Amino acid sequence: MKLNERGLLVVLSGPSGVGKGTVRKALFATEGNNFTYSVSMTTRAKRPGEVEGKDYFFVTEEEFKKKIDEGGFLEYNYFCGHYYGTPLDKVEVALDSGKELILEIEVNGCRQVKEKMIDAVTIFIVPPSKEVLYQRLKSRGTESLEEIRERVDKANAEFGLAYQYDYIVVNDTVENAADRIRAIIRAEHASTRRSIYKYYEMLGDQKDEWE
Amino acid sequence: MKLNERGLLVVLSGPSGVGKGTVRKALFATEGNNFTYSVSMTTRAKRPGEVEGKDYFFVTEEEFKKKIDEGGFLEYNYFCGHYYGTPLDKVEVALDSGKELILEIEVNGCRQVKEKMIDAVTIFIVPPSKEVLYQRLKSRGTESLEEIRERVDKANAEFGLAYQYDYIVVNDTVENAADRIRAIIRAEHASTRRSIYKYYEMLGDQKDEWE
Repeated sequence: MKLNERGLLVVLSGPSGVGKGTVRKALFATEGNNFTYSVSMTTRAKRPGEVEGKDYFFVTEEEFKKKIDEGGFLEYNYFCGHYYGTPLDKVEVALDSGKELILEIEVNGCRQVKEKMIDAVTIFIVPPSKEVLYQRLKSRGTESLEEIRERVDKANAEFGLAYQYDYIVVNDTVENAADRIRAIIRAEHASTRRSIYKYYEMLGDQKDEWE
Repeated sequence: MKLNERGLLVVLSGPSGVGKGTVRKALFATEGNNFTYSVSMTTRAKRPGEVEGKDYFFVTEEEFKKKIDEGGFLEYNYFCGHYYGTPLDKVEVALDSGKELILEIEVNGCRQVKEKMIDAVTIFIVPPSKEVLYQRLKSRGTESLEEIRERVDKANAEFGLAYQYDYIVVNDTVENAADRIRAIIRAEHASTRRSIYKYYEMLGDQKDEWE
């Protein structure tokens, strides 16, 4: 029996290069999973092959700013001349359907999420050591030394924000990290603050007859 | 990598007849588990076949009361003319060894545990319905109707204490309940309040050299 029918909002975040995307993919590959994601909204131009409502919701800057003013985003960012955001109404629909909504969000977006959704489960993914992170950043081979230096500095600054999160998950191997996150989701559903009202409601509906 | 080397103190509790003992046994049967238990202290007489330090630590009432005065128990109870308690020093030794210490405690003992060990993880095991609990109490066949009535009343009163616990775990099947508890233990180790100091300590020990 599942006491809590509403899905959890699970935020995955962590320093650049830690492997957030790979961990998220491993989660969505879980057999019989109940996970869903939310399509972001952006002001950048649609690229060839991208589908409205699947890759992004494409809107004008005016429309985006109007939605910001209305408090319509769970979180949003301005990045390289364009806005990107998670529409709040889509989040609510997903959670009410009973699915666990997994969002991958920039480190600076976590505080915004907690302000809008106090119930969110926030997870900070970290490397097993600084060296592993540096190696991962370097081994991509796509960035200049200067770009890697910037990412290393950014990551070191982001380590300091771990305290804002509910959980710290070490990405030693992708499967281990995904296992820890699955355990966190299961445990959070059993947490008293999430399940007690539902449980008392259930007991209250039942008869005390036993003879 | 495990960020937190100290074991967790995990308290299992719940209404009479809910199956706490069976769930505990399923946990200890987990392959490759890291669980341990604590031998209780009692003032009752040793029964034939019982072994000092294995079944119980057998002490006199005077010794037991002296230990109470010294604050030497994690929790204790007086039941049918005898004292029963969990010695605090044994608990500390077990946790420092890195093992998860699983304790099965009466519902009224939970508050005592939280006062002594704020870090304890407290789990309230509940039946999937009142009817299931009543059926379990009746099907034992060892108690009179009057005794069953007493247990039903006690269980109904104990339901009201669920809010004191960190987690509520439904014992629909023993394996499901044990799975939920294993997930809770894993998640608690990843909780930021338990792991952040260790993680920062680890990062601080490492060099920032990456070139």
